[in-house]
Amino acid sequence: MIPVEEARARILASLSPTTAEIVPIAAAWRRVSAAPVHARLTQPPRDVSAMDGYALRAADATLGATLRVAGSAPAGHPWEGTLAPGEALRLFTGSVVPDGADTILLQEDATREGEQVTVREAASRGRHIRRAGQDFAAGALLMAPGKLLNARDIGLIAAGNHPWVAVHRRPRVAILATGDEIALPGDPIPAGGIVSSNSHALASLVRACGGDPVVLPIVADDRAAIMAVADAVHGMDLLVTSGGASVGDHDLVQEALGARGLVVDFWQIAMRPGKPLMHGRLGDVPMVGLPGNPVSSLVCAILFLLPALHCLSGLPAGAPRTVQARLGAPLAANDRRADHMRASLATDDDGGLVATAFARQDSSMLRVLAGADALILRAPHAPALETGASVRVIRLDALGL
Amino acid sequence: MIPVEEARARILASLSPTTAEIVPIAAAWRRVSAAPVHARLTQPPRDVSAMDGYALRAADATLGATLRVAGSAPAGHPWEGTLAPGEALRLFTGSVVPDGADTILLQEDATREGEQVTVREAASRGRHIRRAGQDFAAGALLMAPGKLLNARDIGLIAAGNHPWVAVHRRPRVAILATGDEIALPGDPIPAGGIVSSNSHALASLVRACGGDPVVLPIVADDRAAIMAVADAVHGMDLLVTSGGASVGDHDLVQEALGARGLVVDFWQIAMRPGKPLMHGRLGDVPMVGLPGNPVSSLVCAILFLLPALHCLSGLPAGAPRTVQARLGAPLAANDRRADHMRASLATDDDGGLVATAFARQDSSMLRVLAGADALILRAPHAPALETGASVRVIRLDALGL
Repeated sequence: MIPVEEARARILASLSPTTAEIVPIAAAWRRVSAAPVHARLTQPPRDVSAMDGYALRAADATLGATLRVAGSAPAGHPWEGTLAPGEALRLFTGSVVPDGADTILLQEDATREGEQVTVREAASRGRHIRRAGQDFAAGALLMAPGKLLNARDIGLIAAGNHPWVAVHRRPRVAILATGDEIALPGDPIPAGGIVSSNSHALASLVRACGGDPVVLPIVADDRAAIMAVADAVHGMDLLVTSGGASVGDHDLVQEALGARGLVVDFWQIAMRPGKPLMHGRLGDVPMVGLPGNPVSSLVCAILFLLPALHCLSGLPAGAPRTVQARLGAPLAANDRRADHMRASLATDDDGGLVATAFARQDSSMLRVLAGADALILRAPHAPALETGASVRVIRLDALGL
Repeated sequence: MIPVEEARARILASLSPTTAEIVPIAAAWRRVSAAPVHARLTQPPRDVSAMDGYALRAADATLGATLRVAGSAPAGHPWEGTLAPGEALRLFTGSVVPDGADTILLQEDATREGEQVTVREAASRGRHIRRAGQDFAAGALLMAPGKLLNARDIGLIAAGNHPWVAVHRRPRVAILATGDEIALPGDPIPAGGIVSSNSHALASLVRACGGDPVVLPIVADDRAAIMAVADAVHGMDLLVTSGGASVGDHDLVQEALGARGLVVDFWQIAMRPGKPLMHGRLGDVPMVGLPGNPVSSLVCAILFLLPALHCLSGLPAGAPRTVQARLGAPLAANDRRADHMRASLATDDDGGLVATAFARQDSSMLRVLAGADALILRAPHAPALETGASVRVIRLDALGL
């Protein structure tokens, strides 16, 4: 049994980010940038007005002064002359400030009569003018590679005049459930069997992490059928199995895939839930073998598959992000296996998080996991803790997990 | 000018959740459940073993006892006899515990020789047995309506034997940018014009909130062209415009759509950035008119469009979730408009959040918004605050915004 951190490091060391593809910005939300994005223009392109009003010379903008309105410049229709002393130009938010003008008189501070405007509030030089390049200059770095693109990022890339963006190809992840006892939801269930829930939960997790899941048909506990999986994973970036990584007599996955070239790196981790976790490589395809228990499978997926998908996607990859919380109830001392306790979260009067572990932590209880807000991390041999003690938790509500 | 809360309440009051559609669970991630999901079976269906080992009678499981192995029951292949006194059944995690047995002897606590097994550690009654229905019983409520389905939820629905799930139809949101001065990224830019960034930032935000964006072509500041939009929004759940809601002479949207039946509810809000925000209805289609400034547009979208999409999607809708933070730098007193200051977030030694407003808060600076982690909320007339004071912030890193 190897420690959690070592297992994660060994999995990550076996992976590389996918290469780039070009997508329209309309399809780039939650994709990961694969190249720097530089501004193709200066924004704003020229000095523009921040308000509706009149452009004029600050020297003319004294209280009570009356100026001649030389014209009007709606946004997108710049007035290309040079403003003379004693003149004002009607303009609007985003309008280009004409040569000769150096301030903006707000329309609420002006009285317009015909072709004349009277100053009702003195305006100081530079006021309400957005300078050319105030947001960014042509050539500025707008987006570094390796960024998960959010709505604001896509706005910024668009503003930099890019209709396309280079992103990492979505990792293709084959998902395989094995076992004579499992059936797809809605299909006939064998005697003593159960419905397969892991594949579609894992597929959703792959989607949540930006990957493209490929759910393979369920494979029975049959050597030849398992061996055939080696042909089904051609072109995949990762193979994820659930079940079959344990030490029971009927866990055939390692043996059968071994005959097709599976090289096993490790297959037991000092953690709970989920001791049997396998890592290896099937030909060109890295493989992570998750436990068959639904809770163990999902918790191991959060600890190992999520960072693996981050790595494949071109994101910084490491342990899932944790936050600090205080215990809402005491915890017993832990044994030699790192534990990941299903817990509810609440907020105390000071705005701090309070995590309370559920009484039942059995790894078969999917409903408890679905109702959990967080996993409390417990290191191997961690001592007993009182209510109020500080712990690190993984928040499950983030990222659609 | 009406307050932010009243504006949000009036927008939400004009909306209803979309009706339901049926999707396969493979496509249900981040959809919103539209009906209760009840378990179609009991899980586990019968008493099953939690470990690999032997089923036997606790009365027989005394240290050193030797039992006859009556058979083997892999998961999915239950042994249907009744275990007699002095007998043991080989089984594995998930195997059905046979009638007559009431405990599990772990395989590491047993020595097997041929058809006999010797007890190396006494086993107590009920140990390592998962009872039928421990996770859930047939008929149990697995999922309430109005839940944003995450990976764990989809696992639970699958485990309840549902291949399909009823979800709210994705809201269809038409997005319209108007203005002579704007061009799509990559298209020729008119003199004094800028690239349109709002439409695709808003489309990404709609996607982040579970909607289907429909980006309409840019409409010039032309009365007839704007009037034609009324025909383009047929069947939409919401129309979102950017620009044209201000009071400038060249903001034609209200006037032109008014001629096509636009009924305006309100069009100014006491907030910054983004005073000009319009709400109304164009025929059957509710409408939100966002300001044209990229930052104002996105901030208003977070405050009003996000709750609107939650409501349309069948989720609980209200103000965006806020968390508490301490100020990393002082803030000046606020004026009569609610402010939403772009800020960075850090974590202090106690794990608490520290929010520091950027020095430049101009509503044209999209790069500052893209680099922000949060918006600090400032109520109208809020007093000046010192470093360390407590504030509420909207975290922008959540949900891909």
